[in-house]
Amino acid sequence: MIRYVLSHIVRIEGLLLFLPCLVALIYREQQGVIYAGLGLICILLGSFLGMRRPQNNTFYLKEGCITTALSWLVLSAIGALPFVITGEIPDYTNALFETISGFTTTGSSILSDVEALSHTSLFWRSFTHWVGGMGILVFMLAIIPMVGGSPINLMRAESPGPEVDKTMPKMRQSAGLLYIIYAVLTLAQIILLVLSRMPVFDAICLSLGTAGTGGFGILNSSVGSYHVLSQWIITIFMILFGINFNFYYFLADKKARKALAMEEVRVYLGIVLLAVLVVTVNILPMTAGFFDALTKSAFQVGSIITTTGYSTTDFDLWPKLSQAILVLLMFIGACAGSTGGGIKVSRIWILFKSIKKEMHLYLHPRNVEKVYMDRHPVEHDTMRSVNIYLAVYIVIFLASLLGICAIENTDLVTAFTSVAATFNNIGPGLSLVGPTANFGWMQPVSKFILMFDMLAGRLEIWPMLLLFYPRLWRNAIGLRNSYRRMEDGR
Amino acid sequence: MIRYVLSHIVRIEGLLLFLPCLVALIYREQQGVIYAGLGLICILLGSFLGMRRPQNNTFYLKEGCITTALSWLVLSAIGALPFVITGEIPDYTNALFETISGFTTTGSSILSDVEALSHTSLFWRSFTHWVGGMGILVFMLAIIPMVGGSPINLMRAESPGPEVDKTMPKMRQSAGLLYIIYAVLTLAQIILLVLSRMPVFDAICLSLGTAGTGGFGILNSSVGSYHVLSQWIITIFMILFGINFNFYYFLADKKARKALAMEEVRVYLGIVLLAVLVVTVNILPMTAGFFDALTKSAFQVGSIITTTGYSTTDFDLWPKLSQAILVLLMFIGACAGSTGGGIKVSRIWILFKSIKKEMHLYLHPRNVEKVYMDRHPVEHDTMRSVNIYLAVYIVIFLASLLGICAIENTDLVTAFTSVAATFNNIGPGLSLVGPTANFGWMQPVSKFILMFDMLAGRLEIWPMLLLFYPRLWRNAIGLRNSYRRMEDGR
Repeated sequence: MIRYVLSHIVRIEGLLLFLPCLVALIYREQQGVIYAGLGLICILLGSFLGMRRPQNNTFYLKEGCITTALSWLVLSAIGALPFVITGEIPDYTNALFETISGFTTTGSSILSDVEALSHTSLFWRSFTHWVGGMGILVFMLAIIPMVGGSPINLMRAESPGPEVDKTMPKMRQSAGLLYIIYAVLTLAQIILLVLSRMPVFDAICLSLGTAGTGGFGILNSSVGSYHVLSQWIITIFMILFGINFNFYYFLADKKARKALAMEEVRVYLGIVLLAVLVVTVNILPMTAGFFDALTKSAFQVGSIITTTGYSTTDFDLWPKLSQAILVLLMFIGACAGSTGGGIKVSRIWILFKSIKKEMHLYLHPRNVEKVYMDRHPVEHDTMRSVNIYLAVYIVIFLASLLGICAIENTDLVTAFTSVAATFNNIGPGLSLVGPTANFGWMQPVSKFILMFDMLAGRLEIWPMLLLFYPRLWRNAIGLRNSYRRMEDGR
Repeated sequence: MIRYVLSHIVRIEGLLLFLPCLVALIYREQQGVIYAGLGLICILLGSFLGMRRPQNNTFYLKEGCITTALSWLVLSAIGALPFVITGEIPDYTNALFETISGFTTTGSSILSDVEALSHTSLFWRSFTHWVGGMGILVFMLAIIPMVGGSPINLMRAESPGPEVDKTMPKMRQSAGLLYIIYAVLTLAQIILLVLSRMPVFDAICLSLGTAGTGGFGILNSSVGSYHVLSQWIITIFMILFGINFNFYYFLADKKARKALAMEEVRVYLGIVLLAVLVVTVNILPMTAGFFDALTKSAFQVGSIITTTGYSTTDFDLWPKLSQAILVLLMFIGACAGSTGGGIKVSRIWILFKSIKKEMHLYLHPRNVEKVYMDRHPVEHDTMRSVNIYLAVYIVIFLASLLGICAIENTDLVTAFTSVAATFNNIGPGLSLVGPTANFGWMQPVSKFILMFDMLAGRLEIWPMLLLFYPRLWRNAIGLRNSYRRMEDGR
């Protein structure tokens, strides 16, 4: 069954590989041949592997998780090949790092000179972000529901509270709507960027990177050399792609009031606003005036909190307060139900609310208090899973940090922010992995640690953890039975 | 009522101030006069304030928390005066920082030249550690029980699991035993240190600092210039004072098997052992051989995990892996029920166990699993309070970090470790607040932030938070009623 799904993935990737060929045709680049050839091989291989339909086509949680983790790995392993074959990133480890960074919408690069790539490969690089963002939407609709039931329930568990509309009962239908929202927003950004006089190729690549909250630029200066108007358009779209997609559901369903009442979105926008203000004031002395400071601050705050990772300026030179705020935003991340990474605003917000509740309980031990979100009580299980998620998050973070420290012996800021930037799927960190630097200088082992972090961060930790949890494989039969029992129980 | 308790505290401090006078007599230092005078004033003031007995001598949680927080503040505010009057630390902010650092058993100093102090003041400085450590034992027995009932229950809530012996029913009795253990251990250390040919004065001061897990040294090189044997004695006693005092209860009660079975103690010793091994191997190339590396590694690991903060070497120059491990140990801290600070081993351990449980639940959703500690199930409330504690801990940590960054504009490692070292009551951090540096260069506002962190860290956060939580004062009457109701309910 896993093989069957993976064969599908390989076939789809084969089709996707033909898109860069179009770019190659336009720019008359020979790299197109390699992409086309690889695409063809993938389609053939995928078809061959997928020939025999599995007898058993029920799909349990375990298979779901493992398939997801393997899908991302297979996508990346194949997606890295063109870079190696064209000789643009000759080392396979580096190419794999770059591709995982692409599909997980991280945007951390090992390239010191991006502009040396062909248009074809630049497009493929940015396109992986868009596919990765799309993949996350699939993942949220198809895999996570298995943990908690219907996709609607899932969205609840993920972004607790918003009473997802009952008029969208079918998974396929909501998936379709998601993709339409995603595609329409991307298209809108491309059009607006072109109108702001950005070259069409640049507009397409940067929009693909914005939609997936990825962050691969196509110039060495990332977005810094474009017109201010283009920068503001990207700022706004980054923030839009960081919003919970339920928000757009509601808007599409003409329930604007409900959309605007979503607590997570309000908190998210509040954090953005506050951070932009503080950073603007903080960097004012080193910029050309208030508007310049605001432009840079808004862009960078939007880029970091949504975990996109574009940069218009070298924030490694900013005052430490602004840097500390950016590092903090790295961890907060975007809304649940968006293409962004990080811990997610809703988790942070639930945590804050439970702290407040606990303080009240400390003072009024007899009271029975509940944590509410969007006026619905937050289930006890949700709160516990938030707490556990954070605990596991911290453990993986620290383990990676120690690993990087053991291997690299670099300064602690570099080690800390390299893990933070990859685990939260952002892209650039500070110091030696800052916006003007890259990850190319690291040891291969460090790169593999960071690749794991990118995948774990992207897939909300559990699938990757289960992939490396040996008892899962050993107990496979016992597990299957316990899930079957669970299914029957419904 | 609060006034009455505080008057007691002032009187006790007056008595304590006469101890340095003995030192002054021996070394013929005139500073003794100032200590004696101040002691006299405190006793008179305390007696005057405490003349009128309060009619209402019931003591609720709110008053308990506020009294605790105020006690530490009053102790420190008065304890700082001798330094100012003798002119040894002329600035009151600095003197207050030093004294709070003393009473909270942190050990962070603003002095660049410790050896310039008189013996009298050096003794007073180390003695504050011992009093602070003692105070924490009182606090654990007298104040925290109010949250959860009897002192026995408390120790359970604090260090869940160990079935505290029912043969010690009375609070006073267990308090007495605690003090005896504390004093005997201190005395044993003094004797052993003197036997290892350390000067008596140094042995006393360093033992007082070890017992309270404080860390004020009396030489600029901290403990680095003493004989290796003395260093090993201090290493072992630091680790002993980081153990849950229930362990010694059991030993005193001839229940060695029960003592040795305590999970927290085992995990704590396991962490110490593992960290010592890794650090030893890591620093081997920069030391004079395996034994030297082991001595330095064991001393520093023991010093940091117990949050004492002595140093025998400048670990700011160690490889980054060792530094990262030390930073990690800063957060783990000692056992609950010891004089050490930090998050506490039991909290970390419960967290790990609940992660493990959650992973099992993820695979076997139908199972009902419980987290066990010392073969007793951990109450759901304990687990929740551990989670909430960590959340509040992180929030305060980040707020302090942002504050320091906003004020100092120093490197991030300095800002991060200065908060980590004070909030966890350790002492030295890394970089500009490393073991050979001090906190004297900081702005007064930063010092006040760190003073708050020291107190909050020491008093397990809640009392300090309540002191600064305005609604607590406004709702005083409502609160009193709710507590009275609670009391009646029992």
